[in-house]
Amino acid sequence: MSGPSTHEDWSDAQEEIMQATYHALLDHGYAGLSISRIADELDKSKASIYYHYDSKDDLLLTFLRYAVDQFLSSIDTETGGDPYEDLEHVIEKVLPLRLDEDEDQIHSVVFGLRGQAVTDETFREQFTEIDDRLAETLRTVIQRGIDDGRFRDVDVDRVTEHVVATINGAMYGRVTTDRSATVPAVRVSLLSYLDAELRRE
Amino acid sequence: MSGPSTHEDWSDAQEEIMQATYHALLDHGYAGLSISRIADELDKSKASIYYHYDSKDDLLLTFLRYAVDQFLSSIDTETGGDPYEDLEHVIEKVLPLRLDEDEDQIHSVVFGLRGQAVTDETFREQFTEIDDRLAETLRTVIQRGIDDGRFRDVDVDRVTEHVVATINGAMYGRVTTDRSATVPAVRVSLLSYLDAELRRE
Repeated sequence: MSGPSTHEDWSDAQEEIMQATYHALLDHGYAGLSISRIADELDKSKASIYYHYDSKDDLLLTFLRYAVDQFLSSIDTETGGDPYEDLEHVIEKVLPLRLDEDEDQIHSVVFGLRGQAVTDETFREQFTEIDDRLAETLRTVIQRGIDDGRFRDVDVDRVTEHVVATINGAMYGRVTTDRSATVPAVRVSLLSYLDAELRRE
Repeated sequence: MSGPSTHEDWSDAQEEIMQATYHALLDHGYAGLSISRIADELDKSKASIYYHYDSKDDLLLTFLRYAVDQFLSSIDTETGGDPYEDLEHVIEKVLPLRLDEDEDQIHSVVFGLRGQAVTDETFREQFTEIDDRLAETLRTVIQRGIDDGRFRDVDVDRVTEHVVATINGAMYGRVTTDRSATVPAVRVSLLSYLDAELRRE
């Protein structure tokens, strides 16, 4: 949760609250998270947090967008070489074969909250932005490959949407089922898909 | 919610309760669903339902497994011809371009409940069975295509897992974001993927 600058503009005050939320979430989980505990992490008053966010859910949704943005911004800085290897790199980062304890905690919070997007428009807007952000990272690499002449001139949006759906389905399957074969299989099959779709003969 | 026999064995009493749950869910939604209302649909006592199910969630999870099993069993009876066309048919059925009002209601319930599988082992077991059931439908068609010599001798599980993940990601994206391009894009890209992976030159 530190390193390269993110894609969106986050103020210093926001960044501080986001970092405190991250640590409070790892220490106490979603159920145990409260504005008080985040304030304790920050050594500030609850009012200073309520100044920026209306509720715990408002703060958490912003945190999710922040975490995804920071994670993908960090990946973006690692790409720029061979576009096929860049796509491999993005997929390895987004779909690690194993989640460590912290990642597992964060994934659980993300997918637990995402269930609420089914009925809540505010949640849906945030998850729309989150998926848009992942699509942007993928689209940028694919478009560069086409511009370089290394990839075929495919429908970039179609390929991007496929990869976003497959990644989301695999991540979602990992946290909502006991089907452990999905992520390893998808890691291989996505590269096979991208190879067939994108690479010139 | 009627038609061909399902893959699992469901007793007549269970089937009756499942049909009543389906109608109660369409009439009242998840929030308004109660054992009383299901009993009303059935013209039976609440006790006769509690005899089979411990709680509303227990009943709903069984209903989801029933609905998925019945839906896929019905699709299974429609396949058996050209395996590539069969896969096209499964994908069209599972990922319709538009959901009617009833389908939208059921999808919302499925994905709303699935969020609870993140933290609840009982829910996770049910969604494991649900994804296993979809995988089985796909695997059967792919394996038949290989046995017939129409498909290449691929790793069936790998291809199946890819399709399950992509379908789930697309369905999930549809109910948790406003990104309307995903399902149409995935419908095309999945067939392109299957064509490249499976079809002999």
